[in-house]
Amino acid sequence: MAAEIVNPRSDSKTHGAAGADGISGAEEPFDPAFALHRGGKMAVQATVPIRDKDDLSLAYTPGVAKVCSAIAENPELVHDYTWKSQVVAVVTDGTAVLGLGDIGPEASLPVMEGKAILFKQFGGVDAVPIALATTDVDEIIETVVRLAPSFGGVNLEDISAPRCFEIERRLQERLDIPVFHDDQHGTAVVTLAALRNAAKLSGCTLGDLRGVISGAGAAGVAIAKFLLEAGIGDVAVADRKGIVSRDRDDLTDVKRELAELTNRAGISGPLETALAGADVFIGVSGGTVPEPAVASMAPGAFVFAMANPNPEVHPDVAHKYAAVVATGRSDYPNQINNVLAFPGIFAGALQVRASRITEGMKIAAANALADVVGDELAADYVIPSPFDERVAPAVTAAVAAAARAEGVARR
Amino acid sequence: MAAEIVNPRSDSKTHGAAGADGISGAEEPFDPAFALHRGGKMAVQATVPIRDKDDLSLAYTPGVAKVCSAIAENPELVHDYTWKSQVVAVVTDGTAVLGLGDIGPEASLPVMEGKAILFKQFGGVDAVPIALATTDVDEIIETVVRLAPSFGGVNLEDISAPRCFEIERRLQERLDIPVFHDDQHGTAVVTLAALRNAAKLSGCTLGDLRGVISGAGAAGVAIAKFLLEAGIGDVAVADRKGIVSRDRDDLTDVKRELAELTNRAGISGPLETALAGADVFIGVSGGTVPEPAVASMAPGAFVFAMANPNPEVHPDVAHKYAAVVATGRSDYPNQINNVLAFPGIFAGALQVRASRITEGMKIAAANALADVVGDELAADYVIPSPFDERVAPAVTAAVAAAARAEGVARR
Repeated sequence: MAAEIVNPRSDSKTHGAAGADGISGAEEPFDPAFALHRGGKMAVQATVPIRDKDDLSLAYTPGVAKVCSAIAENPELVHDYTWKSQVVAVVTDGTAVLGLGDIGPEASLPVMEGKAILFKQFGGVDAVPIALATTDVDEIIETVVRLAPSFGGVNLEDISAPRCFEIERRLQERLDIPVFHDDQHGTAVVTLAALRNAAKLSGCTLGDLRGVISGAGAAGVAIAKFLLEAGIGDVAVADRKGIVSRDRDDLTDVKRELAELTNRAGISGPLETALAGADVFIGVSGGTVPEPAVASMAPGAFVFAMANPNPEVHPDVAHKYAAVVATGRSDYPNQINNVLAFPGIFAGALQVRASRITEGMKIAAANALADVVGDELAADYVIPSPFDERVAPAVTAAVAAAARAEGVARR
Repeated sequence: MAAEIVNPRSDSKTHGAAGADGISGAEEPFDPAFALHRGGKMAVQATVPIRDKDDLSLAYTPGVAKVCSAIAENPELVHDYTWKSQVVAVVTDGTAVLGLGDIGPEASLPVMEGKAILFKQFGGVDAVPIALATTDVDEIIETVVRLAPSFGGVNLEDISAPRCFEIERRLQERLDIPVFHDDQHGTAVVTLAALRNAAKLSGCTLGDLRGVISGAGAAGVAIAKFLLEAGIGDVAVADRKGIVSRDRDDLTDVKRELAELTNRAGISGPLETALAGADVFIGVSGGTVPEPAVASMAPGAFVFAMANPNPEVHPDVAHKYAAVVATGRSDYPNQINNVLAFPGIFAGALQVRASRITEGMKIAAANALADVVGDELAADYVIPSPFDERVAPAVTAAVAAAARAEGVARR
């Protein structure tokens, strides 16, 4: 992939002193992504002044001791006098990083830093990358539980399926702060928002639709369950071997559960079988769907092919058959981008100190996201742009309100 | 201590949306320390722009994938393309917080946040508070080892003795990044700097001096060992039962080792016995040394009484007998404040990616700190002010140079 890069000159943004000489050898390729990443993408900052000993005596000893004592006597005060309840741990074990797979914790850090700065830029949520040196499910869970006093929420990221399901579920059981695997639920929320708007545009409801999801990993499983929760007429999921159907005898526990919940039509066989006459295709698998299968979908279908950079159905192909086309790419209309969801979801949850992120909060997020489009709804505009400044406040407010309505808010 | 405070209105600095109504009840006491701590004292920030989809495609997908791949192929690149090698984890289990003792992780967070912002403000070092929900030594060690891919160094803080010694030692064995318990070594470095200058002022050398340390906890043990490393003539340590001497049969392993290393004069009995004719008193125990014991010290003695807010010897008493008086308080001259050491020590270590902080690096830090005083050396000025801008660069440079000289630098 990249050429050998052996130029570790430190021009770190946070060090005043000059860095060491670079090691001679192959130079960094001229690539703006590498240049931008030099020294990392984030830093911390003090939000109180430390100019003199009076400042120090308030922010540190002896003033800080009074605050510690107060919290020791009344633990709820940690939420008022520290950043705990507003900072999210972005936690990975490096086993499912983007399309690269299991590349380990250090190599995952650029994504985790990116996630952290997106939390901050889009949602005003502080976040810290925590890439772990273990892939053992029990060890990951124990580690996050031990870190939990320091954080207001946990965003799990790039942890491979099916381990991610168990890790998320067990952490939600153990912790009283939100635990949310964005690869699952962020994708699901944005997908639902796009689908609601596509249905609205076409004058039908979710209940009229039969969908097919390609990919039974973290995103595919979560999208299927979430669309059912939201009221889709029917949805089936395909893995590499075909539709996850009740007649298969080779299913993991997760997929067996999925087979029981989904596919009311009882279809079995390859993906193409399910696509015939389907109203919705959702791609979260990679690979390429043969054109005839796309052509066999119902008239006015919706094709959301989210693999990046190569969608499972190229937009040019999809447009020959579908009424609404979405991808994960920023250079096509209708980008299904998780950044539309996770910043506002956590901002809303943290604002009311929700103990968890419920189905109702996620549905509320999806609806708020869909509503941002408003009267400008069109085939090439079923989902807002990530840079639409109305998105995060709308999602935040909807999620906070839903948390209160469901009784999980604590302030 | 503090009155009941039940007003958790969220006016968090990082949330745009307005917070909830406060819960009615007792109001926050008018105290600037509490007001300053509202919402916490720190935040993260992006150091790269995210204004539009082009920015996003460099800082996040797809551009970030190339950077991840490069690191996956060449793990050393994590130091160039992430913040890992410049960010320190400030780790505690809440068992020895300031003078408050075992108050737990949440109540320790204001100190940990304070430490983090001091790292940043004084040393340019990013730092993240990690307060753990376990006090088990093995669990603490395992947790920090699992976090280590995300950090360039570990500052242990407010972990009770003697557990802190084992935790630090075992983490240093397991990790290739610096692990440093500031309560031990930061205090020792600043104490040595003050002592060097006091000796210089008095026209004697460290080797001429016999010192007595009150307190055999983290600071006392570390100061004793460090002063011996630096060449002090003799030093003895007293715990609550008296001098830690070889004839005692009630010593923990740590104190037995200390008894073997220290007290060449072979003194036993109460603290007062050792103070008779001693050249240096170092207080890191709290409590009060009886005035006659101070009076019995050698002429021209040095009294460094560092308990806060009540020094073991009040400066007014000390000045009757001692040539040089230092405390831990900011409202007296010669404040022995760890902030003079830990920011520059870590900044220097991180700058050259030292694998650890060696004795030589700490000695170099103490010498650089002492040298900042220069020609202005006087009885009331043996240690610089924490706000002297020459301190951190001098300590940073000295520590970096020492790391290279000792062969532990990796860039």
